[in-house]
Amino acid sequence: MIIVMTRYAQDEQIQAVVDKIRAAGLSEHVSRGTERTIIGAVGDERVFSPDAFALLPGVERAMRVVREYRIVSREVHPADSVVQVRGLSIGGPAIHVIAGPAAVETPEQMALSAQMVRQHGGKLLRGGAFKPRTSPYAFQGVGVEGLEILQQEARRQGLPMVSELLDVRLLDTFLEYDVDVIEIGARNMQNVGLLKEVGRINKPVILKRGPSSSLSEWLMAAEYIAAGGNHNIIFCERGVRSFETSYRNMLDLSAIAVMKRETHLPVIVDPSHAAGKAWMVPALAKAALAAGADGLMLDIHPDPANAWCDGEQALNPGEFALLMQQLSALATTLGRSLA
Amino acid sequence: MIIVMTRYAQDEQIQAVVDKIRAAGLSEHVSRGTERTIIGAVGDERVFSPDAFALLPGVERAMRVVREYRIVSREVHPADSVVQVRGLSIGGPAIHVIAGPAAVETPEQMALSAQMVRQHGGKLLRGGAFKPRTSPYAFQGVGVEGLEILQQEARRQGLPMVSELLDVRLLDTFLEYDVDVIEIGARNMQNVGLLKEVGRINKPVILKRGPSSSLSEWLMAAEYIAAGGNHNIIFCERGVRSFETSYRNMLDLSAIAVMKRETHLPVIVDPSHAAGKAWMVPALAKAALAAGADGLMLDIHPDPANAWCDGEQALNPGEFALLMQQLSALATTLGRSLA
Amino acid sequence: MIIVMTRYAQDEQIQAVVDKIRAAGLSEHVSRGTERTIIGAVGDERVFSPDAFALLPGVERAMRVVREYRIVSREVHPADSVVQVRGLSIGGPAIHVIAGPAAVETPEQMALSAQMVRQHGGKLLRGGAFKPRTSPYAFQGVGVEGLEILQQEARRQGLPMVSELLDVRLLDTFLEYDVDVIEIGARNMQNVGLLKEVGRINKPVILKRGPSSSLSEWLMAAEYIAAGGNHNIIFCERGVRSFETSYRNMLDLSAIAVMKRETHLPVIVDPSHAAGKAWMVPALAKAALAAGADGLMLDIHPDPANAWCDGEQALNPGEFALLMQQLSALATTLGRSLA
Amino acid sequence: MIIVMTRYAQDEQIQAVVDKIRAAGLSEHVSRGTERTIIGAVGDERVFSPDAFALLPGVERAMRVVREYRIVSREVHPADSVVQVRGLSIGGPAIHVIAGPAAVETPEQMALSAQMVRQHGGKLLRGGAFKPRTSPYAFQGVGVEGLEILQQEARRQGLPMVSELLDVRLLDTFLEYDVDVIEIGARNMQNVGLLKEVGRINKPVILKRGPSSSLSEWLMAAEYIAAGGNHNIIFCERGVRSFETSYRNMLDLSAIAVMKRETHLPVIVDPSHAAGKAWMVPALAKAALAAGADGLMLDIHPDPANAWCDGEQALNPGEFALLMQQLSALATTLGRSLA
Repeated sequence: MIIVMTRYAQDEQIQAVVDKIRAAGLSEHVSRGTERTIIGAVGDERVFSPDAFALLPGVERAMRVVREYRIVSREVHPADSVVQVRGLSIGGPAIHVIAGPAAVETPEQMALSAQMVRQHGGKLLRGGAFKPRTSPYAFQGVGVEGLEILQQEARRQGLPMVSELLDVRLLDTFLEYDVDVIEIGARNMQNVGLLKEVGRINKPVILKRGPSSSLSEWLMAAEYIAAGGNHNIIFCERGVRSFETSYRNMLDLSAIAVMKRETHLPVIVDPSHAAGKAWMVPALAKAALAAGADGLMLDIHPDPANAWCDGEQALNPGEFALLMQQLSALATTLGRSLA
Repeated sequence: MIIVMTRYAQDEQIQAVVDKIRAAGLSEHVSRGTERTIIGAVGDERVFSPDAFALLPGVERAMRVVREYRIVSREVHPADSVVQVRGLSIGGPAIHVIAGPAAVETPEQMALSAQMVRQHGGKLLRGGAFKPRTSPYAFQGVGVEGLEILQQEARRQGLPMVSELLDVRLLDTFLEYDVDVIEIGARNMQNVGLLKEVGRINKPVILKRGPSSSLSEWLMAAEYIAAGGNHNIIFCERGVRSFETSYRNMLDLSAIAVMKRETHLPVIVDPSHAAGKAWMVPALAKAALAAGADGLMLDIHPDPANAWCDGEQALNPGEFALLMQQLSALATTLGRSLA
Repeated sequence: MIIVMTRYAQDEQIQAVVDKIRAAGLSEHVSRGTERTIIGAVGDERVFSPDAFALLPGVERAMRVVREYRIVSREVHPADSVVQVRGLSIGGPAIHVIAGPAAVETPEQMALSAQMVRQHGGKLLRGGAFKPRTSPYAFQGVGVEGLEILQQEARRQGLPMVSELLDVRLLDTFLEYDVDVIEIGARNMQNVGLLKEVGRINKPVILKRGPSSSLSEWLMAAEYIAAGGNHNIIFCERGVRSFETSYRNMLDLSAIAVMKRETHLPVIVDPSHAAGKAWMVPALAKAALAAGADGLMLDIHPDPANAWCDGEQALNPGEFALLMQQLSALATTLGRSLA
Repeated sequence: MIIVMTRYAQDEQIQAVVDKIRAAGLSEHVSRGTERTIIGAVGDERVFSPDAFALLPGVERAMRVVREYRIVSREVHPADSVVQVRGLSIGGPAIHVIAGPAAVETPEQMALSAQMVRQHGGKLLRGGAFKPRTSPYAFQGVGVEGLEILQQEARRQGLPMVSELLDVRLLDTFLEYDVDVIEIGARNMQNVGLLKEVGRINKPVILKRGPSSSLSEWLMAAEYIAAGGNHNIIFCERGVRSFETSYRNMLDLSAIAVMKRETHLPVIVDPSHAAGKAWMVPALAKAALAAGADGLMLDIHPDPANAWCDGEQALNPGEFALLMQQLSALATTLGRSLA
């Protein structure tokens, strides 16, 4: 912890800071500058919060020196971690594409979707059985039956399955249907109860970034999961809220560069939810790979114009096929491969 | 729904839009302009989403004309609604101050806090038993015991009690301890499972605005609660995420003006979480009243420097007493009163 | 300057930082913690930028300790400064209302506007002769003739005049027409050439905050003016860009609290440009006073529906009259007065 | 223009809107729906602003149907435009890299920089002679002498030169030194005087996006230049302001996809100013190409640790050489080439 005193801080105010540091079992280092006195707390600064100092008279501000996240931090664990999903190694040299419709609708729709994914080189099948919607009057997903349909078509094509868990009370159902990767959506990134529960299981978790989460908050949300014992975490960037209205969210590819430096865990990108429009997805998908993403999560649909949900952002079979070819060439150029 | 065609849209593309409108049982109104053809769908536009049209060839964009929220909308219910809490009428002419510490710590701290609130004119006592924290290593609240302490001191001072519900599995416990007003925090504004559950009870709910929620999303979140049958909803603005770092969140008082026009339900303001710093709270609290807020939620603490959580933003007894005097005079000038 | 080394920084890397500090004539203070070594540079840290250190091997980050603004800083000049405009003292106990139409249109419109301002207690008359517009096809202002009309009507009513200077080449014209207060608009907040020029004259300057400027950038922009010798600066908050679409800009009243603490200069608020809609202006104007603003800048028009520019945000005579009464009562309650 | 009436709008209110439309020489199209009446204005809607209607009683909102930008719009000019710079075709199949130091320092530094650019495949040399700085106490550029140095080294290596014009009064000087491409920086994107002046010359202009400009505002700023007769405009995305602090600006690559669809003019990306840190630049540069950029503007320096300005974001010779190799391979995979 570094504590910066105000310009006119008095000796007894400096002493009060020192006393507080010592009371917590740390030692201090006082540097009297020409305009400011700066005090460093030497020892494990996590025992107190900067707030505890900021309130003391004569203190201008207090800031941590050490990152608050530990298990997910690359500083502590320099080598890349790989998350295993039914024989797939996510976070290794191969880039993985997770694809499927935003919502499971019918067995036929999922059968066609699963075939699309498999045929064109996707490695995991996604489908939402429970949908987080802004409006209570919008389609909320087909429910448990959707998990059953998803499981059946995923197994038929030999693809691991991915689905979003909205409610902690449904975790047992997800385990029962043996969902291979549990997705925590953007709106739930700081749903602490949910994070703690998925921290207790040993299924891989995709943790989407909240709509306006800082990277540090995102890493801390992952730390909640990791602290429970589950280190199989995949980060997924999906765009953040912005003032621009020509797309749904602003895809933050700078975040990929930072996250790959800050954490040893895999980082993937969902360009579909960022764009909100299918015509924008190929450009963003390619950019995401070039920025260093370990995988992509893509909205596809056998017939987007008749999708029950988010059809505007789903790639149709032809668009998906073409994009997968381009991604494959791109992966090679980047020294990786499309798994 | 209004559908704007692209400049060079062809007749069969226009016809396809018309067919889709008719297929849903609505009728169309086609306006051929000099540069664009515009098609209006006449009837209940809620049967389809703009997406359904945006995907059709020749369509530039499609937009709703009618608001998606209904029950909470002032358009449908022009008169102000008042939420009753143990004899208090929130949303009427009187302005209510809810105050208390961010976290329940000990019986002594809550006894002092409850006295502070009562003595200086606060009307409801708040205290967090379960705390949503960014870090898994930070203090998470004292838990159920906190509800017991809160209840005891609230009852002793004759103040209704307010506490944040983080997890749907704790709702029964909240009902058991007879929490008078259930707070849904900013991080849970779109936790659909939680919204639906508090929609099924008949306790008043404070719904905080999400850290980057649009006003329309906030109203839709309330509509989730209202659609379940619980219309006792109080909106609470607490600042939104911004690029500025000298305070925690940017308090959006323009939102008060818009919300008071869009909804008949009460709207209050939490200046403490917006500011993150106690010295800023009085200015923001007064501004909130002047902007038209129906109440305030304030962080106070008998001894902020030793608070277990968020001490930097808590008013101490002297600061709280002074602010309450100022607010009272201000309320009178504004043609209201401090309840 | 504080330089935080990475966890595994080596001794020679620490030494390189120390050498760089000494080379600039400062001395260092090295604090070796359990997880990080922190180095403080003692002396005038303004001789180098944090960049110079951030690039050195083994450095995690470098940050300034001292604010970069000096002349405008309250730290250096604790007492409030008052800006004199033709006998008015802006920044003193009295609150001043500057009002007028967004654009000067005709002598008749300005005559009516100036009467409105004077009659209802406004103290300065504003009017734009040159308008910054997003579109090159929109009305750009009537030009120099507008200054003549503005001057004539302002003098007739005995009101000081305020007008926006868009282009450095027009400064002489503004001085010729003796514009009493020169407004630098939000789009020009970092137009360094313009800032430097108005720094060389001795006319009061209203410096609007840029659409997404941090408070620190805003203070630095003022420092450009002040560094040239002109200390007659009035800050004007007018809302910042946000994701919310129900108003034009998000009015940042937290900024008022921070600015009044950081600078000794007056701070006023323009609620009209923030709102973009006249019905929202009274709530925001009152909130601004309650937050501590030293004045307001209001869009008014004798006939908003026929205004040539920004009519939607202009108060009509009745709305303005009513608001001024409310503001007067409010000012008194706040311990100030409406000048 | 589409005018949406409020739910309870009366017939005479609808008639007033119709009258206003007819008074401007357009005709109307009235569609009475179940919940709203919608009125379309048929004809050139640019004759009035939505404001003119929004103010009328009974009107809920009014919105344009047609884009306000024309000359720069792909709708009007479907084929890609190519900007010629001394024989280079920017916006064609080849991707161009503009590189150089943020600031011109000395003849030696520029000689080394120009060699670096030429040797590794950069096609244009940039260097700032006048620097827009947040602080008046920071290095402001070497001034006119910098243009001379830049010109000399650019000519020696046969590279066209690019430099930022901050002040309209320096335009003649830029023409005198025959600066090949004039850069308008982010802070000046809406400096209307400057835009109009560069609209009158026939030099190519790089127009950077403002720090929080919407894409529509950016296109309108270009329209100012184009309306003056200069159609040689190159857009340059450089990141927007955000809440995230681990990089300088949030690079908006979604903007590339939208801009390439909305305008026929070339779009390039400056990853260096977005990142603010050299280690992040290669990932962002590659992502920009993959997203469809027509070129890049890169900060390089022969010795970043001793740069006078922005050294933290400059690539050193080794980093630049490696990146250029990667970009070349990437361009080929994308079906383009590095010019």
